[in-house]
Amino acid sequence: MFTAIVSPNNPRVKRAAQLRESRTRRREGAFLVDGVREVGRAFRSGFEIVEVFWDAGKNVGAEDKISPEVALKRNRVEGDRLDELQQLLATIDSKGVPTIPLSSRAFEKIVFGDRNEGVVAVVKSKTSSLEELDAFLEKKSRKTGESPLLAVLEGVEKPGNVGAVLRSADGAGVDALLIAASEFDVFNPNAVRASLGAVFHTPIVVAPAQTLLTWTRERKIQRATALCDQAIPYVQLDYCLPTAIVLGSEANGLSDAWSTESREDVEMGLLKKIRLPMLGVADSLNVSNAAAILFYEARRVRSF
Amino acid sequence: MFTAIVSPNNPRVKRAAQLRESRTRRREGAFLVDGVREVGRAFRSGFEIVEVFWDAGKNVGAEDKISPEVALKRNRVEGDRLDELQQLLATIDSKGVPTIPLSSRAFEKIVFGDRNEGVVAVVKSKTSSLEELDAFLEKKSRKTGESPLLAVLEGVEKPGNVGAVLRSADGAGVDALLIAASEFDVFNPNAVRASLGAVFHTPIVVAPAQTLLTWTRERKIQRATALCDQAIPYVQLDYCLPTAIVLGSEANGLSDAWSTESREDVEMGLLKKIRLPMLGVADSLNVSNAAAILFYEARRVRSF
Repeated sequence: MFTAIVSPNNPRVKRAAQLRESRTRRREGAFLVDGVREVGRAFRSGFEIVEVFWDAGKNVGAEDKISPEVALKRNRVEGDRLDELQQLLATIDSKGVPTIPLSSRAFEKIVFGDRNEGVVAVVKSKTSSLEELDAFLEKKSRKTGESPLLAVLEGVEKPGNVGAVLRSADGAGVDALLIAASEFDVFNPNAVRASLGAVFHTPIVVAPAQTLLTWTRERKIQRATALCDQAIPYVQLDYCLPTAIVLGSEANGLSDAWSTESREDVEMGLLKKIRLPMLGVADSLNVSNAAAILFYEARRVRSF
Repeated sequence: MFTAIVSPNNPRVKRAAQLRESRTRRREGAFLVDGVREVGRAFRSGFEIVEVFWDAGKNVGAEDKISPEVALKRNRVEGDRLDELQQLLATIDSKGVPTIPLSSRAFEKIVFGDRNEGVVAVVKSKTSSLEELDAFLEKKSRKTGESPLLAVLEGVEKPGNVGAVLRSADGAGVDALLIAASEFDVFNPNAVRASLGAVFHTPIVVAPAQTLLTWTRERKIQRATALCDQAIPYVQLDYCLPTAIVLGSEANGLSDAWSTESREDVEMGLLKKIRLPMLGVADSLNVSNAAAILFYEARRVRSF
């Protein structure tokens, strides 16, 4: 049994709602996750759930003690969705995480856009360090015998694109996403949503370009930089080698560091400038489409 | 020399601004195109330009007669952009199409979102009929010797996704986009923008699913329906055959008609249910990413 929050002006509700803003996410080191499936994935992937808010319906009185079953039935949430949501709330509650019923009016304050599945969680942000990535890749390689397949993004402006890239990376079995930036808000609600849960599953590292470059060089990972007018058609790359597929923003491309060859790069053949054929009038693809093609081409080559 | 429109309430300006609404586009059979490159592409692809509005700056008096050169320099539009815009206006003007200077205040009424390249055109909508497509494909096949490669979309909700699909189709040399609907607003500003001009280059047919199905059957075009849990890994399809890649919406998939086998389908092997491997937690890809992977796989196979 839980005590409901009725007012949209309740401080706890207001504080959660502020996590829709990038500034607050950064300050609090937390973000919001909407939806039964997504909250479940965050939980199962080991993200720390701070608290969970759920929609207990319109007619909730102050200090109402209310069980999810009663409230959800009253809201005509039925069948699979009722079971799923109830089970999620019970599991999370059993770990000692507060699961707090809100009046619909209060719930609307924190729900994002037009999507309302009746549950929103406050979750602690978590990205990986390069050391953690090393450990992860070593363990994976011992298990599968496969060399690393990584994605690097630099300067991609739209959070939805980052989410879509994560979703294809997850689908194609890309090991991790490296974001070349000193700071990056990967838990933007549009990115979380577009990733369809992959944001909780694929390790994400945020580090400056130079740090990532040095790291890939030290591990002899070839970097396949996808830019316009490059030398090698993308289908000619040997994707079975340790590979980082490096993508820049549509407006500004990649910073020069990525395509500058060091002595090691030349000796080891680590820089591979690849191009996607553009047979029509458009001179480039949407970054998430280019990523999807390259990830699945790598997967195709590795699987045969 | 042109007479400027100063007031945002000018009826011509208001009427153009209304083309941002789907309802008005349908009624008027016209749509808006923003940007120098996009207007140029529409013009060169044989779309009928009704009128062109351009931003003549803040300090435009009523009945000012103004040349683009003076106005654009006054707005500090310089170098390449000045040349490009001036040349576009001159070319369009020489065809007897009105090119109308607006005060910045009036121009802001019709410009879309945050993008302002100083030029917006009213363009007549134009899609192809299946008869026109037949003629186009016959001509193309005579030239290249290649069998048709088509894309079919059904029920895709987001205009931005339709635009992104057009952009990859254009890049991969897909012959045409068929939209399975009795009516579809392909000239939504988000679709036009996301297509990066491909909306003017790739033939688009809008027709009900049953009409498209009959049309593909009569031409013995195999339909590769991309759905979850399908039989054939997408890399096993013979993309050199006449092929239509059929994609549904992420929420509802494809209507049953597409995967129902007729006697002809069985005899000719026209129905191919293909799947994209999903190795992670997400159970599907974003529709434009799935499209990009399949279009480029078809191109890869055809090119070798």
